[in-house]
Amino acid sequence: MAARASEFDLIARIVARVADRNDVIVGIGDDAAILRMPPGHRLVVAMDTLNVGVHFPAATAPADIGWKALAVNLSDLAAMAATPAWCTLSLSLPQPDAAWVDGFLDGFLALAARHDVALVGGDTTRGPLSVCVTAHGVVEPRGALLRSGARVGDDVWITGTLGDAAAALRQWQAGEPMTPALRVRLDRPTPRVAAGLALAGIAHACIDVSDGLLADLGHVCRASRIGAELDVDALPSSEALLAAFDVAARRELQATGGDDYELCFTAPKTARLAVEDAMNACDVAATRIGRITADVGKIVMRDAAGAPWSPPRAGYVHFEV
Amino acid sequence: MAARASEFDLIARIVARVADRNDVIVGIGDDAAILRMPPGHRLVVAMDTLNVGVHFPAATAPADIGWKALAVNLSDLAAMAATPAWCTLSLSLPQPDAAWVDGFLDGFLALAARHDVALVGGDTTRGPLSVCVTAHGVVEPRGALLRSGARVGDDVWITGTLGDAAAALRQWQAGEPMTPALRVRLDRPTPRVAAGLALAGIAHACIDVSDGLLADLGHVCRASRIGAELDVDALPSSEALLAAFDVAARRELQATGGDDYELCFTAPKTARLAVEDAMNACDVAATRIGRITADVGKIVMRDAAGAPWSPPRAGYVHFEV
Repeated sequence: MAARASEFDLIARIVARVADRNDVIVGIGDDAAILRMPPGHRLVVAMDTLNVGVHFPAATAPADIGWKALAVNLSDLAAMAATPAWCTLSLSLPQPDAAWVDGFLDGFLALAARHDVALVGGDTTRGPLSVCVTAHGVVEPRGALLRSGARVGDDVWITGTLGDAAAALRQWQAGEPMTPALRVRLDRPTPRVAAGLALAGIAHACIDVSDGLLADLGHVCRASRIGAELDVDALPSSEALLAAFDVAARRELQATGGDDYELCFTAPKTARLAVEDAMNACDVAATRIGRITADVGKIVMRDAAGAPWSPPRAGYVHFEV
Repeated sequence: MAARASEFDLIARIVARVADRNDVIVGIGDDAAILRMPPGHRLVVAMDTLNVGVHFPAATAPADIGWKALAVNLSDLAAMAATPAWCTLSLSLPQPDAAWVDGFLDGFLALAARHDVALVGGDTTRGPLSVCVTAHGVVEPRGALLRSGARVGDDVWITGTLGDAAAALRQWQAGEPMTPALRVRLDRPTPRVAAGLALAGIAHACIDVSDGLLADLGHVCRASRIGAELDVDALPSSEALLAAFDVAARRELQATGGDDYELCFTAPKTARLAVEDAMNACDVAATRIGRITADVGKIVMRDAAGAPWSPPRAGYVHFEV
């Protein structure tokens, strides 16, 4: 029953639903978009693609794909403490399926509306299902959070809870029903935009956790030429994760699982109250999980008893069919 | 003999070769790029994807894919009279193939260097071969050329020659050897960046010819609420096209063939000398091919004798395997 439509029909369906912003001078419908930057600000650009069979299973609901494709990009802007403004979308579809596009837009535009992001251009084309999004934000000079700013002695913090998305994926891969509270974290990640903005001027370094805590904190370590020591039992867990997995599985999911899209950031010890105030102000939980060391490039994890802990396998491989 | 590499290896290969610009505050290697806009300018954003089997045959040389993926986006900026500045690249590959990426970068970065465009971010991921590029440019307020500015009585102009890329594609589809001079137009289109900039303040409307002259001029007609009359025998032909195709085939290729990436623009009759001076200054040929009429949405074509001419089939379908 999938309605077939031409590329121009699909674009018309998209145009009919996109929200406007008064800084969009030319949106969808010309050779390119024209956008008015706020004076004195820097442009921040992130681009990420989701491919079927690699980043999501073929059976994923179109609305969830739409949400996630934008969320992973807004998460990158959040990690820079940028304010999202505009995005472009390139959608490759095996056939022009209007019902699929409508569902996709339900998720994509719901998240766009939440962050006042205008969809201003892109293309639709034939090809294996693939969604590429470029997200544009703005930041004041010296307002951005980089991976390279961590300093020895900083606390390491994480927003929200860790391991939920990877836990849902593991349930799915094992052929088990996914716990709804875990599944929503996999399908509808929450980009921590407000938290990122609140941390500007407080945090020293920031990254979003897309490939797993150890992998992503590793990027911070390399960029900042520092190391880190983490308390594996301090990693924040959701009630759903605690209920569904034992401590060994949980530690592994939390240290190496991807797709959480929480912010991992470092801040000086003297900023603990400021961090808590900033996180309270945007209603986001943040947990201290370790500290930055001078042991360049090395991340050590310890359990609550102080014994070293290592994940059975490091790094994270995205969903693969 | 394809060398296999991880995503991070591929990114390292890319980082090692990208050129810098002094307005790139943070380039590849953080969660997002940070870019300094020239004060008082507008941001111009174009995004286009090329998929294997849809936009190019699987056997296309990686360097040609790289060149074309950037060229089609710079062509969109050219049609807006924008100055290119930065781009992001999302590269989906069936497997991490370092030699393929090196070849791809040969073409991509050669064109980027020609236009002083810095590659500032994006991602590499596993998936069917697909290249998505977002190109960013800048334009002064009211300096952009839009599709919507054409006025009744304007001349219609085209840069360069028409039909070459479609001619090469037709040879290839017929199993014939491609004429080298035609093939290079298919594989290595020239984005008319300097011509677009030179036309700012002179032309009323502009579009790049990617889907075929009739289809793309149709977009101008709809956006400007006008019509057009074209002299089919005035469409500029390359020597290679004249040598390889008879007049009937040539007319069809020129009116409906895609992938030329020439600029089709309209300008008042009083600006003929200004157009010629502007085109001479950037060493680009431009030919008057018709005029804008009040017959909204209708494009009429006539041959040199004044008789109506219609293409045997309108519109353009991209290469499909």
